[in-house]
Amino acid sequence: MRTSQYLLSTQKETPADAEIVSHQLMLRAGLVRKLASGLYTWLPTGLRVLNKVSEIVRDEMNKAGAIEMLMPVVQPADLWQESGRWEEYGPELLRIKDRHNRDFVLGPTHEEVITALVKNEISSYKQLPINLYQVQTKFRDEVRPRFGIMRSREFTMKDAYSFHIDNDSLEKTYQDMFQAYCNIFERLGLEYRPVIADSGSIGGAVSHEFHVLAESGEDAIAFSDSSDYAANTEMAEALAPAGEKPTGTQTMSEVATPNVGTIEQVCAHFDVTAEQTVKTLIVLAQQQDDQPQGLVALVLRGDHQLNTIKAEKLAEVHAPLTLASDDAVKQMLGCDIGSLGPVGLTIPVIVDRSAAHLADFICGANKTGYHLQGVNWQNDVGEIQQADIREVQAGDPSPDGQGKLEIKRGIEVGHIFQLGDKYSSAMGCGVLNEQGKHQILTMGCYGIGVSRIVAAAIEQNHDKYGIIWPDAIAPFKLALIPMNMHKSHRIQEVAETLYEKLTAAGIDVLFDDRKERPGVMFNDMELVGIPHTLVIGERNLDENKVEYKSRRSGEKQLLDIDNVIRFITQL
Amino acid sequence: MRTSQYLLSTQKETPADAEIVSHQLMLRAGLVRKLASGLYTWLPTGLRVLNKVSEIVRDEMNKAGAIEMLMPVVQPADLWQESGRWEEYGPELLRIKDRHNRDFVLGPTHEEVITALVKNEISSYKQLPINLYQVQTKFRDEVRPRFGIMRSREFTMKDAYSFHIDNDSLEKTYQDMFQAYCNIFERLGLEYRPVIADSGSIGGAVSHEFHVLAESGEDAIAFSDSSDYAANTEMAEALAPAGEKPTGTQTMSEVATPNVGTIEQVCAHFDVTAEQTVKTLIVLAQQQDDQPQGLVALVLRGDHQLNTIKAEKLAEVHAPLTLASDDAVKQMLGCDIGSLGPVGLTIPVIVDRSAAHLADFICGANKTGYHLQGVNWQNDVGEIQQADIREVQAGDPSPDGQGKLEIKRGIEVGHIFQLGDKYSSAMGCGVLNEQGKHQILTMGCYGIGVSRIVAAAIEQNHDKYGIIWPDAIAPFKLALIPMNMHKSHRIQEVAETLYEKLTAAGIDVLFDDRKERPGVMFNDMELVGIPHTLVIGERNLDENKVEYKSRRSGEKQLLDIDNVIRFITQL
Repeated sequence: MRTSQYLLSTQKETPADAEIVSHQLMLRAGLVRKLASGLYTWLPTGLRVLNKVSEIVRDEMNKAGAIEMLMPVVQPADLWQESGRWEEYGPELLRIKDRHNRDFVLGPTHEEVITALVKNEISSYKQLPINLYQVQTKFRDEVRPRFGIMRSREFTMKDAYSFHIDNDSLEKTYQDMFQAYCNIFERLGLEYRPVIADSGSIGGAVSHEFHVLAESGEDAIAFSDSSDYAANTEMAEALAPAGEKPTGTQTMSEVATPNVGTIEQVCAHFDVTAEQTVKTLIVLAQQQDDQPQGLVALVLRGDHQLNTIKAEKLAEVHAPLTLASDDAVKQMLGCDIGSLGPVGLTIPVIVDRSAAHLADFICGANKTGYHLQGVNWQNDVGEIQQADIREVQAGDPSPDGQGKLEIKRGIEVGHIFQLGDKYSSAMGCGVLNEQGKHQILTMGCYGIGVSRIVAAAIEQNHDKYGIIWPDAIAPFKLALIPMNMHKSHRIQEVAETLYEKLTAAGIDVLFDDRKERPGVMFNDMELVGIPHTLVIGERNLDENKVEYKSRRSGEKQLLDIDNVIRFITQL
Repeated sequence: MRTSQYLLSTQKETPADAEIVSHQLMLRAGLVRKLASGLYTWLPTGLRVLNKVSEIVRDEMNKAGAIEMLMPVVQPADLWQESGRWEEYGPELLRIKDRHNRDFVLGPTHEEVITALVKNEISSYKQLPINLYQVQTKFRDEVRPRFGIMRSREFTMKDAYSFHIDNDSLEKTYQDMFQAYCNIFERLGLEYRPVIADSGSIGGAVSHEFHVLAESGEDAIAFSDSSDYAANTEMAEALAPAGEKPTGTQTMSEVATPNVGTIEQVCAHFDVTAEQTVKTLIVLAQQQDDQPQGLVALVLRGDHQLNTIKAEKLAEVHAPLTLASDDAVKQMLGCDIGSLGPVGLTIPVIVDRSAAHLADFICGANKTGYHLQGVNWQNDVGEIQQADIREVQAGDPSPDGQGKLEIKRGIEVGHIFQLGDKYSSAMGCGVLNEQGKHQILTMGCYGIGVSRIVAAAIEQNHDKYGIIWPDAIAPFKLALIPMNMHKSHRIQEVAETLYEKLTAAGIDVLFDDRKERPGVMFNDMELVGIPHTLVIGERNLDENKVEYKSRRSGEKQLLDIDNVIRFITQL
């Protein structure tokens, strides 16, 4: 491709409304343009990357036995009513009416459509398992679209749905998809982690997220430093500290602590670290029929943070998690929130495992201006209910028993899920089993945010000059930059000959034949992030050489012109 | 691909609601499934064909210098308001509101989006011409979607838009696109015709349709039997008969013709052919300010049909064309419509060229129950206004002066158009020209109905057993059918070995490894329309041979097993 016959559309200025680096660089490098809030046009360079990502995804899905098909963007409402999601799904589901006033949606996902299809097409267990996928345009009406392609409303997704006669079959396909996803992200050339996203109440993990690691990632991921264990911090299990629970030696005593409310103030007052204190949070209880709204106390070690997702899963706690107001606490428990503690409370108390592991600790006395020290659970509180309700921290023991946790940030780009029979039951999707009886199928679903991967790849691979594409998804493999070609017949001749040979060798080359200063060309090619560059200049040509430069390492190297094709092909 | 691991989904029964053969066969062969009115899911086999069509389209577009990009399905209303089409476009434009109650449309086409983009991205004539295209999902809310994919609401289209500093540049790109379209349809292996779709008032043709020929086509196309001339019959120019206008020899006389109204009755009464009569149609005139509604007489030879599109273009005629009621005719002209004629009318009279060529003809006398015979224009009517207002017929002289016209039926699958500045003017899309002045661009647009091509190809290529794909767009090139493989170890071994070798040779093969009777397999492969079949049977294996069959010709041939790969590769 010649830049003179291409739409490069690079921009010098960083767009004011682009908050994150991938959004800035996708605009500056001419990958996308905003059409409206959350709607983006893919310019030629961006589409090249998007297509390369799609092709790798397709190839690995095919290798794993999945079959590609294509479902419509517009879906009839009745299927969503059948599955129950017409009511359940929030306003992100864009509901529309056609000219005959019939209800439709713009599909944010296709469980309903595929389940209805398989219900009609598959009649026997002999046709199973089957794994159907598409690479398709989705719409999710985000309340506040932002970060460009990272959280747009219209986006490209690969979604796959598998159907099985039993859980063993589902488990096998799930593992195949897990492996296919690993292969995909390896081939994309991205640093990634499969992460436990949720753990079923019975039988281990049923969902994994795949994250591209980047400092700007929205999600925090906890990894073991000694094993494969990785989980979203929201989901990572927080263990009690290893070893025997220490035995208390002190006797509880009350201490006047005027103006001491926060853990910091408690530590300063008692000259202890936060690990020797507990904090008590009062939240609304799950409401019982006809009963007034109750409260629940959640107790954590002073240095730990509550994990709301874990807390919301407790039967005692109202979801969504809601902190009781200061007034409600004062009225029902008789003290300021800065003086709360687990001793003598008349409401249910749930103690985090690490807090429960403490002895001789300090807490509020449930009396404004007073704390207790030398507190021990058995002596001073009695039997307690323990639960995992905190965020994991770096240095925590890994839940798999191997090593300690580290925390990194990631961008979710894939999600695989053992769905079970949620959709197949609701929509009556079953087959005749080996015994000739109708049996509801069990399902898996497997998503990859194809367009989001483009943004995530940039978050992980850039410097102050622009994007640094992994070779596998670069819009072009090679930039060919002749210096002042329009003033030098020799440069032009060499450039044209090289371009012809490189193209004939099947190399995806962008030939910068614009009448621009070399500096402009270098900057553009660095901004666009083309992995390899050849520069043709007068001085090197005198020695029959051209200069190669690697975008990632910055390494330069002079090549004999006769060696160029071989060198580039082997990169 | 093995059928046992594929979703073949063939059906024996012809679906009741499928009216045309392509719709029936697309359902029966497992290409598509209806999701809702005008919405179709592409099953794996259908998607394979759709993708092969898309890739040929892309390849030829790229070769012609067009650059691929991708615009959103959902478009903001403000662009349509800017172009004026928010008001102009009928209910086929599906208007939707997002969660913030802002107006959007599901894009039936992308002139607005691309014009707004080019306006922002291109600033100098030096960056022109540019031709941008996409293969993308469109939505058109048809009032009565039918014929399956042929007239669906959601469909796949290739749309390209070119931008130019002047008409010469537009004309050049237009010719390049014309040639690219010819290349595309050649490569698709379809019998097609580029057809003049409209002629500009100045400077020749500005729009061509591309039709796939098929008896079931909705459009009638007129071709010269001696040149490249082809036009939609709606647009084809109807010339007067060749040669000198005959000189009249008779004197006009009035004849009582009770109960004679139609041309057939006139012919019977006077014992003449319809070519010697004229018929007179009374239509509403273009309304003048403050004047009462007038009438216009349109006069045609008795055997000719009015072409409403041509008639509506006349300044005198109200558009849309509206026949005057019998009552209005009687009140203003004083007779029944069966007795109308051009002699002595006080309203404007427009005479078709062929009618104007007549001498000594017969027409109504504008007096109920009477006709005139021996009528001649000059003597009996005076100076007349001539125009081309009729449909062409087979046997008419070709408008390019070469040969006679034939009429065939076609399916419109492509349309190229010199748009001019309709959108660029309305939206202020211009650049700095060579003189440094801002200049509005001129545009071309070039559409191909990618999904429609799949249906059109079937309309053209099928027999009573099913589809007969051209090789270039077949879902698979070859069907490998082992007979009773599950009962014969030898058959299985040969089949597996051949499958492996064919796949390794890069041949797109569907291996029917189901436990089905041979007849079921043959029928399925014929229905699906795979161009080439290899059958492995015991008897032929005894002689180390397998049977080849061509789907199109039905020709069978025994091949040495060792020659199979070479034979298939060379097909």
